[in-house]
Amino acid sequence: MEELKQRIQTEGRVIGDSILKVDSFLNHQIEPEFILKIGRELADRFRGENITKVLTIEASGIAVAMAAGLALGVKVIFAKKGHASTQIENMYTAPVYSFTRQEYVDIFVSAKYLTSRDSVLIVDDFLAHGQALGALVNIVEQSGAHLVGAGIVIEKQFQGGGKVLREKGMRIESLAMISRMREGKIEFG
Amino acid sequence: MEELKQRIQTEGRVIGDSILKVDSFLNHQIEPEFILKIGRELADRFRGENITKVLTIEASGIAVAMAAGLALGVKVIFAKKGHASTQIENMYTAPVYSFTRQEYVDIFVSAKYLTSRDSVLIVDDFLAHGQALGALVNIVEQSGAHLVGAGIVIEKQFQGGGKVLREKGMRIESLAMISRMREGKIEFG
Repeated sequence: MEELKQRIQTEGRVIGDSILKVDSFLNHQIEPEFILKIGRELADRFRGENITKVLTIEASGIAVAMAAGLALGVKVIFAKKGHASTQIENMYTAPVYSFTRQEYVDIFVSAKYLTSRDSVLIVDDFLAHGQALGALVNIVEQSGAHLVGAGIVIEKQFQGGGKVLREKGMRIESLAMISRMREGKIEFG
Repeated sequence: MEELKQRIQTEGRVIGDSILKVDSFLNHQIEPEFILKIGRELADRFRGENITKVLTIEASGIAVAMAAGLALGVKVIFAKKGHASTQIENMYTAPVYSFTRQEYVDIFVSAKYLTSRDSVLIVDDFLAHGQALGALVNIVEQSGAHLVGAGIVIEKQFQGGGKVLREKGMRIESLAMISRMREGKIEFG
């Protein structure tokens, strides 16, 4: 997606050799119209797959997942992090390690909203080491739903998460693939 | 907003006398088309106010804020919680107490995205004790931006947060006002 790559080049900030911040339109400030475009592009890549649910993880995935859900005409579930006292029902849960925060958190999805009758598209803003995506796949497996694949906005290819999951046969579509970040420069794969 | 009240009555689950769960369309599973309607209704209540930014807080506020931002044609900022190691720039920060989680967390907004030239509409899914909303108001004040008001999906009037902030002169529009929850029943104000 050319417009996305251009905006990553223009507005993205590289910190060290692995952190990319795109806070101006995706992860802190969001541009609703641009997010809708991203959602339509993700939806287009999975047309004809009879998707019934979009699944993402709070928080940065929500806007993009909503846009994909709108384009596909299906409901969106966002997995929650941690354990709030208001969570008392049957749920699927999986641990996820955050390299950013350097800690494990649990993510969970209520069993009510994801069942074996669903065909699920996972949507997320970033794919790096694949921790969050792996946990979402785990949750889909627990539910017995059919996993169609994952639609990702930005994949940091050099962190290897996408490779591992594709080798297991998973379909992953990333709108921007970054092969390397060095000395503040972003190279697309 | 009649459709919203009906869905709260039909799908909402009351836990104890203060917790309301609307996970089927707002807080865990979201219905994109219905969220767009909610966003348009919120935007309509503040038409003509020359809003330049919508401000919310992660995570449940994001979908509704994006819908309001779409309807108003402006960018959306979501305040982040905690302190990630990727946060290194100038920011506004405010503490917020979560009654659900029984702990304080900091929320923060990068100074880059909110300035004294902005006119801000705060949008959130719930207003209860007013902790989150108060912290967002604090952040708008730090930025020097003009605060237009707040658009809320569900206000739990009996928890008093809205009253305190309205007495300070703030304009708050809530699409559903709940005056009491008792024995599993929801009463609108």
